[in-house]
Amino acid sequence: MKVLSFAGSLRKESSNKKLAREAVRLLDRHALARAEFVDLKQYLTPLYDADQEQDEGLPEAVIRLGAKIAEADGLIVATPEYNGSISSVLKNTVDWVSRLQPMPLAGKHLLLLSASPGGWGGIRGLWHSRVPFEALGVHVFPQMMSLSGAGSTFDEAGRLSGDRVQQLQNLLSAFTGHAAARAELEAA
Amino acid sequence: MKVLSFAGSLRKESSNKKLAREAVRLLDRHALARAEFVDLKQYLTPLYDADQEQDEGLPEAVIRLGAKIAEADGLIVATPEYNGSISSVLKNTVDWVSRLQPMPLAGKHLLLLSASPGGWGGIRGLWHSRVPFEALGVHVFPQMMSLSGAGSTFDEAGRLSGDRVQQLQNLLSAFTGHAAARAELEAA
Amino acid sequence: MKVLSFAGSLRKESSNKKLAREAVRLLDRHALARAEFVDLKQYLTPLYDADQEQDEGLPEAVIRLGAKIAEADGLIVATPEYNGSISSVLKNTVDWVSRLQPMPLAGKHLLLLSASPGGWGGIRGLWHSRVPFEALGVHVFPQMMSLSGAGSTFDEAGRLSGDRVQQLQNLLSAFTGHAAARAELEAA
Amino acid sequence: MKVLSFAGSLRKESSNKKLAREAVRLLDRHALARAEFVDLKQYLTPLYDADQEQDEGLPEAVIRLGAKIAEADGLIVATPEYNGSISSVLKNTVDWVSRLQPMPLAGKHLLLLSASPGGWGGIRGLWHSRVPFEALGVHVFPQMMSLSGAGSTFDEAGRLSGDRVQQLQNLLSAFTGHAAARAELEAA
Repeated sequence: MKVLSFAGSLRKESSNKKLAREAVRLLDRHALARAEFVDLKQYLTPLYDADQEQDEGLPEAVIRLGAKIAEADGLIVATPEYNGSISSVLKNTVDWVSRLQPMPLAGKHLLLLSASPGGWGGIRGLWHSRVPFEALGVHVFPQMMSLSGAGSTFDEAGRLSGDRVQQLQNLLSAFTGHAAARAELEAA
Repeated sequence: MKVLSFAGSLRKESSNKKLAREAVRLLDRHALARAEFVDLKQYLTPLYDADQEQDEGLPEAVIRLGAKIAEADGLIVATPEYNGSISSVLKNTVDWVSRLQPMPLAGKHLLLLSASPGGWGGIRGLWHSRVPFEALGVHVFPQMMSLSGAGSTFDEAGRLSGDRVQQLQNLLSAFTGHAAARAELEAA
Repeated sequence: MKVLSFAGSLRKESSNKKLAREAVRLLDRHALARAEFVDLKQYLTPLYDADQEQDEGLPEAVIRLGAKIAEADGLIVATPEYNGSISSVLKNTVDWVSRLQPMPLAGKHLLLLSASPGGWGGIRGLWHSRVPFEALGVHVFPQMMSLSGAGSTFDEAGRLSGDRVQQLQNLLSAFTGHAAARAELEAA
Repeated sequence: MKVLSFAGSLRKESSNKKLAREAVRLLDRHALARAEFVDLKQYLTPLYDADQEQDEGLPEAVIRLGAKIAEADGLIVATPEYNGSISSVLKNTVDWVSRLQPMPLAGKHLLLLSASPGGWGGIRGLWHSRVPFEALGVHVFPQMMSLSGAGSTFDEAGRLSGDRVQQLQNLLSAFTGHAAARAELEAA
């Protein structure tokens, strides 16, 4: 099973990038999936503009990201909460990708994660972020993980430890067990 | 009472731009408020990036838009629904504006409108769009207007007619009655 | 594959009961699943009250309904929208069922449908209704069906016709294809 | 200004009942409003059933509660989160009250509070609970308070202390300042 993991943030030191990378490390270590992290900073898009789409076609970054998504069986998105809701970076990415034909998100399995410095761990952002994916036919895994106090929770190598690494590992195992079964069936 | 009106879309021929402008025309015609339309295409921002904010400060377009918002007593936003949820253009604008100090949205009154070519009129987008504003302390007017079949509903001068112009006028009257009273009180 | 279907309404002539029954008929006719309709009027509960739960245990209707849910591989819920959101009947049912140990909703696949007399077809209620199920670990199918103008759309035998029966049939086929694969895998 | 305060829970020892009562005590002590607490256990309703409404009319408890709401300028609702969303008790109450003519919630100002034993303080429930009120034309105050760790936060007399009492008092002051101004204007 192939998993593509990215963060809904552009910031270099983003806790959500760390979390998306940590998920890849754990998937690999426990042989749960062949996983790859991509940094949306390498897939920068302008704000969605239907005129630009009509005049110039879809941005090349959208086409490249769409191809990565199309190859994956499952997606992991670790995303910050901006103003109690979805991050603008994530929303803009989804809106551009939704314009691809065929639309690569349709029918994919998605696990949402969130890291935040505060006490709520981005829980409102997670729930708000489910909506556009579900509207596009994505199977968003019901369980999610919100990591509060994220400022001090990764070590220097960007790893989680203790209960948190166990919690993430269990969630990844449940998610890939669910999504991989689908991938097998569709391959069969 | 001063009202600032804009659309959550960049497209030149956007029905939501027409709707935001039509609201301004009606507010003026019925002397409900001194209203101004601004086109977000004139306030273009990059995707929100905390690194950019730290290194270069807030984009000049954000500062200009924030000043417009600060001067207004009420806001009108006509916004498309993208993928069953908030438009990326609107979300990105809100995320940048929320970084201004003082934050100009706090305590403002907002009326949300939506136009869409389909039958649902963007109703899911309207409800999804309330959340970031409310999280920022905006009083979002409970009543909203979703204009379905928007492709054929504006005349060549961009005006609504019949029941729809009456519906919008009634809503504008209720909104400004509510928000203007607040503005008076705060001035007193 | 076994499917349990019910409506989030108590009204005898509820369009949502008709829709939940029509789904059962189509599942049967196309041999997509062994499906059963239950009427929540036969599983009436008081309003959720933690004191009652502690003093008297769970109501017998909750235990009976929970057993039905536990036996099913998939669930279909056709539900009205009350005040732009989940129906109180459905929410109360979910809240009681969530107290069962083991909790029978966990990991189930759910298809949400809605019928309403108006033009929006209960679309806001559908999206609001996803949340408690997802919070309980249910895989809510991304596609949903909202049937507008439901007053005149069922014939005297309670059947849909034309495009609408085709739309429902396609959705049922997609849902059971997805959920049945899971059921097989888990049985294997 | 008159405020009606109640909790979205039936449980006798509910933290949300304590919170709704504590709000009344503080409103009174600081002369912010004439406030009254009512216990929904005294206004028990069956599950909403349109057949019952048609055959027997609205339950007497709904009529009594509606009259209380009609007399108030502002409402305070302290509500638990059930399964990541609105409590069934609160939803059922709203659904019945919405059937009164005239509908007493229209145009009211509402402050939402939440207490919960866990770490998130019912934050998801608060946001889910806004929706039906807003759909009914209620001005839901943007700021809300979610009290986490509620099991140990009230003293034996049911009072909050320290930062939490200050936080609630500030919120009540902001809410009544906002809503009372409206009440004055409408009286003038």
